[in-house]
Amino acid sequence: MDLEAVKRYLEKGGETASAVDGLPPRFLEPLIMNALKVDLIETGRVVCSMKIPPRLLNAGNSLHGGAIAALVDVVGSAAIPTVGYSAPNTGVSVEINVSYLDAAYADVSRLLSLEEIEIEARALRVGKAVAVISVEFKKKKTGKVFAQGRHTKFLPLSSKM
Amino acid sequence: MDLEAVKRYLEKGGETASAVDGLPPRFLEPLIMNALKVDLIETGRVVCSMKIPPRLLNAGNSLHGGAIAALVDVVGSAAIPTVGYSAPNTGVSVEINVSYLDAAYADVSRLLSLEEIEIEARALRVGKAVAVISVEFKKKKTGKVFAQGRHTKFLPLSSKM
Amino acid sequence: MDLEAVKRYLEKGGETASAVDGLPPRFLEPLIMNALKVDLIETGRVVCSMKIPPRLLNAGNSLHGGAIAALVDVVGSAAIPTVGYSAPNTGVSVEINVSYLDAAYADVSRLLSLEEIEIEARALRVGKAVAVISVEFKKKKTGKVFAQGRHTKFLPLSSKM
Amino acid sequence: MDLEAVKRYLEKGGETASAVDGLPPRFLEPLIMNALKVDLIETGRVVCSMKIPPRLLNAGNSLHGGAIAALVDVVGSAAIPTVGYSAPNTGVSVEINVSYLDAAYADVSRLLSLEEIEIEARALRVGKAVAVISVEFKKKKTGKVFAQGRHTKFLPLSSKM
Repeated sequence: MDLEAVKRYLEKGGETASAVDGLPPRFLEPLIMNALKVDLIETGRVVCSMKIPPRLLNAGNSLHGGAIAALVDVVGSAAIPTVGYSAPNTGVSVEINVSYLDAAYADVSRLLSLEEIEIEARALRVGKAVAVISVEFKKKKTGKVFAQGRHTKFLPLSSKM
Repeated sequence: MDLEAVKRYLEKGGETASAVDGLPPRFLEPLIMNALKVDLIETGRVVCSMKIPPRLLNAGNSLHGGAIAALVDVVGSAAIPTVGYSAPNTGVSVEINVSYLDAAYADVSRLLSLEEIEIEARALRVGKAVAVISVEFKKKKTGKVFAQGRHTKFLPLSSKM
Repeated sequence: MDLEAVKRYLEKGGETASAVDGLPPRFLEPLIMNALKVDLIETGRVVCSMKIPPRLLNAGNSLHGGAIAALVDVVGSAAIPTVGYSAPNTGVSVEINVSYLDAAYADVSRLLSLEEIEIEARALRVGKAVAVISVEFKKKKTGKVFAQGRHTKFLPLSSKM
Repeated sequence: MDLEAVKRYLEKGGETASAVDGLPPRFLEPLIMNALKVDLIETGRVVCSMKIPPRLLNAGNSLHGGAIAALVDVVGSAAIPTVGYSAPNTGVSVEINVSYLDAAYADVSRLLSLEEIEIEARALRVGKAVAVISVEFKKKKTGKVFAQGRHTKFLPLSSKM
């Protein structure tokens, strides 16, 4: 067991401090969302697609689990206004969970041809105070689900239109 | 219901495309980890602290739920080698879940004095094939827990040392 | 705050001790499963229906959250052999989660006409070592989803047929 | 793949129909709770112990995953009134999740000496509308954690005392 290696891993950001420190506030969302295209919006359902950008890969060259969780947050939230809530007010997160079923973009040899994925958010419930959205990630070429998440939000100020 | 507003929100990254597209591969981890400091590493337990950097805020000026989930992934993984697994091999994520209990850094007036948080990862189990880590987030000043997550990993290649 | 009331609630079983203590080993499964009917089994998918039996209600006269979680476990596990694993070996649970979206059978006036529900388990992944199943609960009359869960199992001894 | 075996498993309750059908309404809670003893109640924290009763075992002779989930529900709910909410009103479940780390009571040879476990519920948050409780299961003899869950409830009618 090499505890120093763990420490070095966790503090490795230091190397890139100058690049990262200069970034503007609220930069995580554009980092995650920049590649998103909206394919379909209908009542209770949002479908997006994304060519996985290299910046969102992990050390194993597959889509980072943290990026998938952040996409569950962001795309899941976008399903709430589709059932009649005002867009700027999608509440606060209460719970996010994700099951990772397979790696997307794991094949290093395909790094140059960005793998395209589909993200489907389905509102399971949008009540007066609580919304729950299921978010599924598929590889576009094969249709295979590689992650499934759920997002629960509290809607304190919502007023159904 | 304004479906166009949802679409604009999800595709808003377009505005920042030039800034984001130039970022290097695997940029998410330094973005998330750059501010981490390791306070303690012992068998089965890792404690880090972080002054919340503005780049990780959400539109409400609190630490982004996606950033918290990514930190559950990264800091949780770091607890695995502390119980005797080789550091470069912490397996693949099977499940991540997070409960959000409170906002950290929500007070806009305190934006200039970065709020400091503590992240504690505790290995609940590191078996031959499956590891489960609990990760708790506290506000350093008050000791109040503001998020709790769990991270389950599959350790296909691990060999206990 | 009446801590004595909490204690009385948790230890209330004492009143029914004689009835409960006489029950045979492994009684939980028949208690939960007795009302299940299998409507469909196909590769990766199992659909059951159940008229909610009064014994599975909670104090609010809706299907008990613990019963729903137990059904995620049992019906979810049944989806694993449908993709080619031998039936007696569906591994051990690693994680179960459930979102409760609505109450089923909440209307006391309808107690005599048992509400019928549908439970659909869909295998998201059955790999060599890990299986993940999504389980959705619907009210049969309206088609409305009232709970969604996920079940992750480790398949240590499985051999694909 | 033997789909008939899956069907027989799911409908096996039929054999015990007469025993199960005669049970009174709301029987699941006494079945689960009858063995619970309250060891400690304090603000935000409830600790119970239980000798695992044979009726709650699964086919592998360990404590059934569904029983553990039901205990997360019941013992987790009991932590809410300890922070100042009126006892009869602990809201409705929004989410329950459990990680299973190890089997309790798996050794058939020890069936006669019932293994004792400890269940600790800790209120992470009890706000105006949402409560989140962490529930940990330990083997009493070794102190080893064998399951960890979280329970999120919505408190629509609560009024802090």
